[in-house]
Amino acid sequence: MSEKKMVFFFGDGMAEGDAQMRDLLGGKGANLAEMTRIGVAVPAGFTICTEVCTQFFANNRRFPDNLTWRVKAALREVEAAMGRQFGDPENPLLVSVRSGARVSMPGMMDTVLNLGLNDQTVQGMILQSGDPRFAYDCYRRFIQMFGNVVLGVEHHHFESLIVKAKQRLGKVEDVELAAEDWMVLVAEFKLRIRQKTGREFPEDPWDQLWAAVSAVFNSWYKPSAVTYRRLNAIPEQWGTAVNVQAMVFGNMGEDCATGVAFTRDPSTGESGIFGEYLINAQGEDVVAGLRTPCQITLRGKQKNQSALPAMEETFPKLYNELVDTCHRLEKHYRDMQDLEFTIQNGKLWLLQTRTGKRSAQAAMTLAVAMVQEGLITREEALLRVDPLSLDQLLHPTLDPSARKQSRVLAVGLPASPGAAAGQVVFSADEAEESAAQGLAVILFREETSPEDIHGMHAAKGIVTVRGGMTSHAAVVARGMGRPCVSGCGSIHPDMEGGQFTVEEPGSANRLVVKRGDWITIDGSTGEVLLGRVASRQAEMTGDFATFMGWADGVRRLRVRTNADTPGDARMARQFGAEGIGLCRTEHMFFDLERIVAMREMILAADEAGRRRALDKLLPMQRGDFEGIFREMKDLPVTIRLLDPPLHEFIPHDVKGQTEVAVVLGVSLEEVRRRVAELAEANPMLGHRGCRLAVTYPEIYEMQVRAIMESACHLVKQEGFTITPEIMIPLVGYRAELAHLKARCIAVCQEVMASTGVNIEFLLGTMIELPRAALRAEQIALEADFFSFGTNDLTQTTLGVSRDDAGGFLGTYVEKGILTQDPFVSLDQLGVGQLVMLAARNGRAAKPGLKLGICGEHGGDPASIGFFDRVGLDYVSCSPFRVPIARLAAAQSALRIAAERAKEAKLSGPVRGD
Amino acid sequence: MSEKKMVFFFGDGMAEGDAQMRDLLGGKGANLAEMTRIGVAVPAGFTICTEVCTQFFANNRRFPDNLTWRVKAALREVEAAMGRQFGDPENPLLVSVRSGARVSMPGMMDTVLNLGLNDQTVQGMILQSGDPRFAYDCYRRFIQMFGNVVLGVEHHHFESLIVKAKQRLGKVEDVELAAEDWMVLVAEFKLRIRQKTGREFPEDPWDQLWAAVSAVFNSWYKPSAVTYRRLNAIPEQWGTAVNVQAMVFGNMGEDCATGVAFTRDPSTGESGIFGEYLINAQGEDVVAGLRTPCQITLRGKQKNQSALPAMEETFPKLYNELVDTCHRLEKHYRDMQDLEFTIQNGKLWLLQTRTGKRSAQAAMTLAVAMVQEGLITREEALLRVDPLSLDQLLHPTLDPSARKQSRVLAVGLPASPGAAAGQVVFSADEAEESAAQGLAVILFREETSPEDIHGMHAAKGIVTVRGGMTSHAAVVARGMGRPCVSGCGSIHPDMEGGQFTVEEPGSANRLVVKRGDWITIDGSTGEVLLGRVASRQAEMTGDFATFMGWADGVRRLRVRTNADTPGDARMARQFGAEGIGLCRTEHMFFDLERIVAMREMILAADEAGRRRALDKLLPMQRGDFEGIFREMKDLPVTIRLLDPPLHEFIPHDVKGQTEVAVVLGVSLEEVRRRVAELAEANPMLGHRGCRLAVTYPEIYEMQVRAIMESACHLVKQEGFTITPEIMIPLVGYRAELAHLKARCIAVCQEVMASTGVNIEFLLGTMIELPRAALRAEQIALEADFFSFGTNDLTQTTLGVSRDDAGGFLGTYVEKGILTQDPFVSLDQLGVGQLVMLAARNGRAAKPGLKLGICGEHGGDPASIGFFDRVGLDYVSCSPFRVPIARLAAAQSALRIAAERAKEAKLSGPVRGD
Repeated sequence: MSEKKMVFFFGDGMAEGDAQMRDLLGGKGANLAEMTRIGVAVPAGFTICTEVCTQFFANNRRFPDNLTWRVKAALREVEAAMGRQFGDPENPLLVSVRSGARVSMPGMMDTVLNLGLNDQTVQGMILQSGDPRFAYDCYRRFIQMFGNVVLGVEHHHFESLIVKAKQRLGKVEDVELAAEDWMVLVAEFKLRIRQKTGREFPEDPWDQLWAAVSAVFNSWYKPSAVTYRRLNAIPEQWGTAVNVQAMVFGNMGEDCATGVAFTRDPSTGESGIFGEYLINAQGEDVVAGLRTPCQITLRGKQKNQSALPAMEETFPKLYNELVDTCHRLEKHYRDMQDLEFTIQNGKLWLLQTRTGKRSAQAAMTLAVAMVQEGLITREEALLRVDPLSLDQLLHPTLDPSARKQSRVLAVGLPASPGAAAGQVVFSADEAEESAAQGLAVILFREETSPEDIHGMHAAKGIVTVRGGMTSHAAVVARGMGRPCVSGCGSIHPDMEGGQFTVEEPGSANRLVVKRGDWITIDGSTGEVLLGRVASRQAEMTGDFATFMGWADGVRRLRVRTNADTPGDARMARQFGAEGIGLCRTEHMFFDLERIVAMREMILAADEAGRRRALDKLLPMQRGDFEGIFREMKDLPVTIRLLDPPLHEFIPHDVKGQTEVAVVLGVSLEEVRRRVAELAEANPMLGHRGCRLAVTYPEIYEMQVRAIMESACHLVKQEGFTITPEIMIPLVGYRAELAHLKARCIAVCQEVMASTGVNIEFLLGTMIELPRAALRAEQIALEADFFSFGTNDLTQTTLGVSRDDAGGFLGTYVEKGILTQDPFVSLDQLGVGQLVMLAARNGRAAKPGLKLGICGEHGGDPASIGFFDRVGLDYVSCSPFRVPIARLAAAQSALRIAAERAKEAKLSGPVRGD
Repeated sequence: MSEKKMVFFFGDGMAEGDAQMRDLLGGKGANLAEMTRIGVAVPAGFTICTEVCTQFFANNRRFPDNLTWRVKAALREVEAAMGRQFGDPENPLLVSVRSGARVSMPGMMDTVLNLGLNDQTVQGMILQSGDPRFAYDCYRRFIQMFGNVVLGVEHHHFESLIVKAKQRLGKVEDVELAAEDWMVLVAEFKLRIRQKTGREFPEDPWDQLWAAVSAVFNSWYKPSAVTYRRLNAIPEQWGTAVNVQAMVFGNMGEDCATGVAFTRDPSTGESGIFGEYLINAQGEDVVAGLRTPCQITLRGKQKNQSALPAMEETFPKLYNELVDTCHRLEKHYRDMQDLEFTIQNGKLWLLQTRTGKRSAQAAMTLAVAMVQEGLITREEALLRVDPLSLDQLLHPTLDPSARKQSRVLAVGLPASPGAAAGQVVFSADEAEESAAQGLAVILFREETSPEDIHGMHAAKGIVTVRGGMTSHAAVVARGMGRPCVSGCGSIHPDMEGGQFTVEEPGSANRLVVKRGDWITIDGSTGEVLLGRVASRQAEMTGDFATFMGWADGVRRLRVRTNADTPGDARMARQFGAEGIGLCRTEHMFFDLERIVAMREMILAADEAGRRRALDKLLPMQRGDFEGIFREMKDLPVTIRLLDPPLHEFIPHDVKGQTEVAVVLGVSLEEVRRRVAELAEANPMLGHRGCRLAVTYPEIYEMQVRAIMESACHLVKQEGFTITPEIMIPLVGYRAELAHLKARCIAVCQEVMASTGVNIEFLLGTMIELPRAALRAEQIALEADFFSFGTNDLTQTTLGVSRDDAGGFLGTYVEKGILTQDPFVSLDQLGVGQLVMLAARNGRAAKPGLKLGICGEHGGDPASIGFFDRVGLDYVSCSPFRVPIARLAAAQSALRIAAERAKEAKLSGPVRGD
């Protein structure tokens, strides 16, 4: 047998473990040892390490041979430290037995409290506490917990006995039961256990202890724990440690209390201790909320307008001790702590400390404060804030008090964050018209399509009945920064009637909401509320600005934005975007006036007809680009030429097609014939992107002309410096790019010649097909830059259509085949290989080739870290993701630097010559 | 300037070039030199090499400085050899000036004949021939040709002068014009040239020569030549050589003749000279078909029932000389030759020899014969037959005489080869019913879908109105070996009326063909004929069997087949398939009885309902597999579990959906709801393949059960040895395969336990997604074999939907961006990289991993060569492609061996120790 250490004692200022031993002792055990080490009063105990758990399962659920004497020896030390004996009928030591894995798995595994009680030791407890009711209450709680957790007797068996007792005694609440009532129930509980299990409740404390340790180990494989691990990617083989610790009681009298404290305010980040406590209570009473807890500090008391006494008043000495402990812990752990404490007969015990969870606001505020206090470095501060949490700071949020008073109509998916109020409209055109009149509107649709873009843009927010987190509505709304609630299945639409009906959650009330009624949506929670609920604007000054400044100082990756309109561009610039990485040109064509010309182009019989229609679009496109160049003055702008298949621009319903026929003066037959001609089995893999330009070169010619004319105009008339970056989508072959490039360059030269302005321009390509990535070395020879279109690259590499993935991706995650949605976080092992290959081979063929990424992954922190390592020059993401990307890029740079430093250290100094 | 040789003389048994110098002298020049060298009588001449052409273009279309004296010197040698002088007014040497590139570009470039004629030398010609009419006819022909080719005067200018002359003289045919008539026309021609070009026709033969050489070089960039090169991937920089050769005349009298001969019969491959000739005629007369040519041999005369005298009779001595020359050339070139000869005044001259084109039948017959004669080796024989040409030998062909007498209704695309006659039916069900009654039917559809499969299978052939070479009808028909003509746009269908109307090609006749009328289709030409035309069955014995046996002896790659039915399996086995590489199970479900159960499964509300429906399918599937295992006794069978999305099994039209509702006893609403639920934006990337089994595990469970039950039954009851290969499609993740594998193995073990039979089985996966290829190293750990699904891998890697590629792939080929359809021949540079990567990494993770390919590329010779080099174990293709694949694999093995031998030679002997 291994002679490795299995059991780690802590108590009385001395501990065999420490905070570094998390893998072996679990998080809880490691922190209990650490606190003990630094002199914080922690009830003595010991940790049975995770390796014992592993052996336990390897050995057919039996303990290692030599565990027994080790546990006995450790318990003897606990007895010495606490001055009580395990099983002593006069002064018994009671213990808690708790799980504790490497990473927190809250509530997933089992715990047994008050272990060591039996018919004899309960008498000792009475002796010590002088309170028989307290002692028997502890005893019956122990039997209940042990019966349930260790012996598998379901809760309701015990609960029903209590209910019967109360009926018999004419009592309503548990607290009304007296010592002798509990004494009877203890006997009844034991009887019930015998009936249910055929076994006696174990009176021997050692039998109790071994059974409880065994039960905690076994709970590692409880279905809920298994599921939790799978969802959080926690390896099975880690196992759990078991912490056996002396019980202390906060409910032994008026000089007892229990509480939780944060070393700083977890919602605002303000300095100063923050927390609640209850006199004469157990930890679970604070959590259960049956009694109103008191504030710890006087300041907290004032802030919460609490009438109850603060701990600062009632236990001033212990309060100072707690404050001192908080400071000590925060300084020691160098982060804000969340701790649990118990006061037993006037003595303060710490039961747990851990890094405190915090709001995004608090995370940033306290990180900045801690740097200013000299507690942590800027680098540490940057690494402590979850980039994704910044999202909360950028969007308007509902005013909490106004929120409380309003009525929730429905709850859908939180598809795009932020809060907005507006009058309901039922079509995109309506939204645009109302917005033009200065009205705030919420666009309600069954689902959205590209034809709704102008309405989504005009609306303050969007609600859809169908569609998930990656539906058209969700993706587009996030891109635009519009709040969106999607998949509101409980809403019954009546689009013709201009109203919808909804049953309020949790009631049978049917409410009808009509066109023009006010509603408010919270895209961060998925709630749709009735009426106009006040919200608060985000602020991007103060700590936010300081913090983001630090981030910008360390990152290597540039951050651009995906923006299709001057408005989006302006917003993104405010968020810190350093240019546009993707300006899609297709949305521009959905404008009411333009779509007519676009459709005329599509329905034209020949090239001449197409050119006539495109001539109408040219001045509008020129205006689009001029507006964007203006907003992005002095920053680079990448414009992608037309990408979607032409059929997206023609309505699919007969009504819409009839309108088109009337407007364009052709027959409905003609429109339908063209629709049939353009129909595709798999549009994603069809006639789109640069393939359109191979068959209809005049489309890209018009677009390139518009780009160059607007750029030359601004350069000539207003002295701008512009280097337009023209991007060709869906390239798979070098010959394809070479063919189109020649035409584009010809147009550029023609425009420059006719305007007499000479400007530099770049011509690059999207890398969004596996073939393009595989042939990057060749394609690079024709390109000034690559921009990875990881959305399409993911679709093709995985063979998964984002529009259709809803039918199965959920099941994949459920069954643990996938741990994350590959459209949210880049599939680094698969798609990432292609990105890496293309980046390497592209640069091998053309050193200094500019590389960027403009898929949705450009705003995902994990993916950004990957792109940083691959050596891309920039990521481009939707405006609201820009701050997230800035921070993620900073964190990535810090991590890479740390790894390099570590490697350098490992390899030692290199001798030069 | 380079002192390299530029001009290569040949004549009088001596030549400066030879057959190896094709790159420098072009094909024609090299062969003229070679023939001269081996003592064949060839009119003397010289070749100006291709490097001069390159210099000509590099030097702004000017000849190199020192070309002049070289040409003069060479021409002096020609004069000596032929005994005539260039420009001599008494005995003038006339020459032809012809192009000659490395590879033949038939008719693409220019030629000038009879060069050297002018008003003086024409007198010499009269002296020599004694025939003024002949001399002036030559002269006017020369002016016409020179005027057109060199001076750019269009043909019609000369033709109209001839027409006017004949009108003036009251003559109809050219032959009626006398010497003096031509003399007048010569003058008129020269006048017209002066009018059109402002220049005099050059009288100086040297001016004529340089101008003609220049014109031939320039014709390298004629638009037609440029297009031809692009289509045939011939590099621009090769350039052409120019051959200047003494003229000989077959039209100088009755002791003159001209002819073409093959050293063996090019359509049957039979030994013995084969060809035609004309007395007192020019080469172009044989080609033009104005006079009926005579046979060269007596045997030919008998065979063709010709009344005209054979050369064997008229020129017995020259005939023997020709036969002797044929033998000499064939022995020298070691292949069947196609040659041109001219007899001038009783002397036989050879003007050209080249490897003769031959029918597939002839290629095989003569290859076998030549091996038996000891002329070539088996390896050479194998390399000489184009694998694709074997297709002609495998399918029934129309009897040529019957074909001549029948009426062509329409011509569509030759979508699937072979000839078939049958009565027209208009639906798949009708086809199946009629076939069940023993009738031969041709299935006529506007287009086909998976629902038509059973009808296509029952029919003798298929005709569709819409769809290209890769349409559903074409792909499925080729797979089944059914002849198919697709895209017959000139047929106007009346499906409801059970008839179609068609305008006969080249006439305004409208014909109506009704249900039950006989038609015949030729899928090799795309013709649809009226009535029942006789056809000939293919024979696979004799030379074919000998030849294929040699191929099998040489190849390393195994050849399996894609077969879904026992019938296909049997046919493929006859063609030499060594197992089944892909047995698709989806087609099995389209059977009338089964589709009901399939639809019941799809519409079931829950798993229990699905299982009930699947239980009905189980015995039928078991029967399917038993049938296939029987046909493939002792050979491996790979069965792919269900792949297509479920919506393919439900009709998309209301009528069909109503029928489904009635049959299954559910509401139409219910059916439509489910159809809407299953609808996908991109089915190719949707809920299909193994994704179906992740969400509905019971489907694969039923299929695996059916496979194992049938295998165990045959093993137990009939002593078969079967190792079923179960294949899971569309895997992208290792976890996906591991998840499904566990379930499959459980079912296998259960079946083996319950039947008491223990058999080995393999569980593998398709590699058809880029991610699967990229993660092959991981996926291999769960797989017993990989089978590359290059159809889908091409679709995803290129981002091109095969169904939608019609809209743009044509333009890509037209514009030269693509040189071949990537669905026909593997995109080796793109998709091939993934295949290579996956093969290498898969084997690295699991040495000996079995690798195969089952996409359409498995039957494409170029792709097969690639798969051989990558090291796959087998290719699998449709039954009719099996012989093609066997030969292609043999050729690949020979080429690889040759390269290795060459490498070994280059690297020299390795010293052992």
